[in-house]
Amino acid sequence: MKKLTTAVLDQGKTTDILLADDLKDLANHLGGYGRAVMWVFDTNTAKLFKQLPPAHVVLESGESSKHLSSLERILSTCLDEGLARDGRIIGFGGGVVCDLSAFAASVYMRGCRLTLVPTTLLAMVDAAVGGKTAVDFRGMKNMVGSFYPAGEVLICIDTLRTLSDKEFLNGLAEVIKHALLSQDEELYKFLLVKKNEILSREPKTLATLVELSLEVKKWYIEQDPTETKGIRQMLNLGHTFAHALESSSHFGSWSHGAAVAWGTCRALEAGIAMQVTDKAYAIGATKLFKSYGYDIEHRIGRGDWIEFRDHLLKDKKKADGKVLFVLLEGQGKGVLRPLEMPLIQHLVIAKPIF
Amino acid sequence: MKKLTTAVLDQGKTTDILLADDLKDLANHLGGYGRAVMWVFDTNTAKLFKQLPPAHVVLESGESSKHLSSLERILSTCLDEGLARDGRIIGFGGGVVCDLSAFAASVYMRGCRLTLVPTTLLAMVDAAVGGKTAVDFRGMKNMVGSFYPAGEVLICIDTLRTLSDKEFLNGLAEVIKHALLSQDEELYKFLLVKKNEILSREPKTLATLVELSLEVKKWYIEQDPTETKGIRQMLNLGHTFAHALESSSHFGSWSHGAAVAWGTCRALEAGIAMQVTDKAYAIGATKLFKSYGYDIEHRIGRGDWIEFRDHLLKDKKKADGKVLFVLLEGQGKGVLRPLEMPLIQHLVIAKPIF
Ligand SMILES: NC(=O)c1ccc[n+]([C@@H]2O[C@H](COP(=O)([O-])OP(=O)(O)OC[C@H]3O[C@@H](n4cnc5c(N)ncnc54)[C@H](O)[C@@H]3O)[C@@H](O)[C@H]2O)c1
Ligand SMILES: NC(=O)c1ccc[n+]([C@@H]2O[C@H](COP(=O)([O-])OP(=O)(O)OC[C@H]3O[C@@H](n4cnc5c(N)ncnc54)[C@H](O)[C@@H]3O)[C@@H](O)[C@H]2O)c1
Repeated sequence: MKKLTTAVLDQGKTTDILLADDLKDLANHLGGYGRAVMWVFDTNTAKLFKQLPPAHVVLESGESSKHLSSLERILSTCLDEGLARDGRIIGFGGGVVCDLSAFAASVYMRGCRLTLVPTTLLAMVDAAVGGKTAVDFRGMKNMVGSFYPAGEVLICIDTLRTLSDKEFLNGLAEVIKHALLSQDEELYKFLLVKKNEILSREPKTLATLVELSLEVKKWYIEQDPTETKGIRQMLNLGHTFAHALESSSHFGSWSHGAAVAWGTCRALEAGIAMQVTDKAYAIGATKLFKSYGYDIEHRIGRGDWIEFRDHLLKDKKKADGKVLFVLLEGQGKGVLRPLEMPLIQHLVIAKPIF
Repeated sequence: MKKLTTAVLDQGKTTDILLADDLKDLANHLGGYGRAVMWVFDTNTAKLFKQLPPAHVVLESGESSKHLSSLERILSTCLDEGLARDGRIIGFGGGVVCDLSAFAASVYMRGCRLTLVPTTLLAMVDAAVGGKTAVDFRGMKNMVGSFYPAGEVLICIDTLRTLSDKEFLNGLAEVIKHALLSQDEELYKFLLVKKNEILSREPKTLATLVELSLEVKKWYIEQDPTETKGIRQMLNLGHTFAHALESSSHFGSWSHGAAVAWGTCRALEAGIAMQVTDKAYAIGATKLFKSYGYDIEHRIGRGDWIEFRDHLLKDKKKADGKVLFVLLEGQGKGVLRPLEMPLIQHLVIAKPIF
């Protein structure tokens, strides 16, 4: 185990982020917790174990498990296993398992210990770090939850071996987004230079990729742990467009990552139109997404505009009734701006600007 | 409205505690929040309103409502009413309504605003202040919850008019407990001198009583907001004995307050036996409880001892397998001590020591 970094969050709570050499190293570390632990898996991550540890819950894989009923199941098992307030919940899985385990840990006896072992690229660079926990509620994503940073996040690149390409690209879109939001160009350049190694999932390269990406997320969350200062919101770059695209079933089944890549490119175009974003920078960033195979040129049909717009209008970030978007002035410089509907319409249904 | 005090809790979160002149003053203040509010009542506190505000939930009165399903009902209504993250939940009721509303506010969109209007003496001096929120889970009290201090606690003595004598005495036991735990003797002396005014619920006297009692709770919770430093635990004086008495149905239906009065006297006796508590102080404190009509001399039958002991052993405060009790060295000086079973048995089934 190698300590990558420590994120200092709300009220001085810290998350140690550790990198395991391999699965054995990970198992050793987890074994060190002793017996007062309760594991949470989903049906896919449970397969990574020959034999499951005694105290565990296995959830159905996928977003549909992210419900209060799963929370109740986890809490109930904690009780059955006699877990005390100084016991530990270990979430072993993707963002769904991480969000649920963390929510459960935040409310079990008003808070017990928590370790997250993210097993998707998305969870490694995003979901497992930053303290946001949630379940979906009555069809609304992440409607109910808490802020509760894990004490430890254990990253083991070897767990990614079984991840599908679709899920891998899902996480990679957030990595590229982090590259644009970074205060330096290291991650951006790494993505430019190491494309083949990344796509072939060369372990050492992935370890560096995850480490650099986490540093960016850390920079934003440490300054604004509970998303009240307008800094952490910048991590939503591309997400307002993306959510509207994902929400509308007409547009086919867009994965979250693909939608974020598409949405970030729309935000870059909007920035140019608003004279906020440097054009050369926008062109470069768009090319980077394209080089990793994302469909960033997709435009929605004229007939789908009304539905797309209605989804946009449900967004939480609003001022004077206008939806606010994260735009980029340039590398690492996000700003929150309202966009007029005609401009949005032009960007999502007309030809690309560049 | 008069500001009584501000409690500074975890991560610098503050609770303003305000005292209303009367119901009208209270209504004015509540009206000032505007429309983005959702009210929580129980069937008894809803009766205090001629007309209920538009967005509200009315829970069945009593502890049996303190469940995840009520939480879900509150969250669902918040969603139906379109409450946003900067909206406010107003809990209007006793400890059950306060604990539930506060839990809901802590998880709705990962935390919305919260005002508590405690309408029982117990909730005014205890439940509404300090940030502990909870629901019972699978028969275990307060098993699931969070720390989430209300932004405002509004105390209106007039709401106590409809409170039964039993519920009034329920809260008063915690007030007397606070008097023993206080760093000064003001509340203790007030209870000695103002007995008649208190029992006849003279409004000005009650306002002072609540204010003095709150100051004691504030002193403990500000130093140890999340009960991790062994200071806040002192507020459990009498509660370990009390819970065991309450839990066992054989002993008749003890109200929580009556059990706390009984349990505190047992802790005083234990303190004498352990040469921890000053005998003269213990005698005085016991007399004080007695003067307010609590049955502090009750002893359990020999045949009920095993059940009582088994309930004790379920207590969360343990060291080396021995249950820990809060004992008093003297005014305001609590200490945590393990007690041997033979001593406990002697105290609860034999004749009183003094
Ligand atoms: N808390 C946060 O800050 C935050 C940030 C971003 C996303 N999220 C949440 O994360 C969730 C999405 O995360 P996700 O993409 O990891 O989804 P996920 O957890 O559903 O995982 C995606 C799929 O990969 C499978 N899987 C996981 N690990 C695997 C492995 N090692 N090998 C093979 N298959 C594996 C899962 O079973 C699932 O089918 C969403 O619910 C989102 O809201 C939270
Ligand atoms: N969060 C904390 O720190 C904390 C501290 C102490 C107790 N508690 C919790 O508080 C709860 C007990 O509180 P409680 O004793 O207020 O119980 P409660 O809320 O059940 O109220 C007791 C009864 O009084 C009724 N009532 C309330 N206000 C009234 C009024 N003004 N007029 C007439 N009737 C009224 C209620 O409907 C109920 O029937 C327990 O669940 C306990 O766990 C929490």
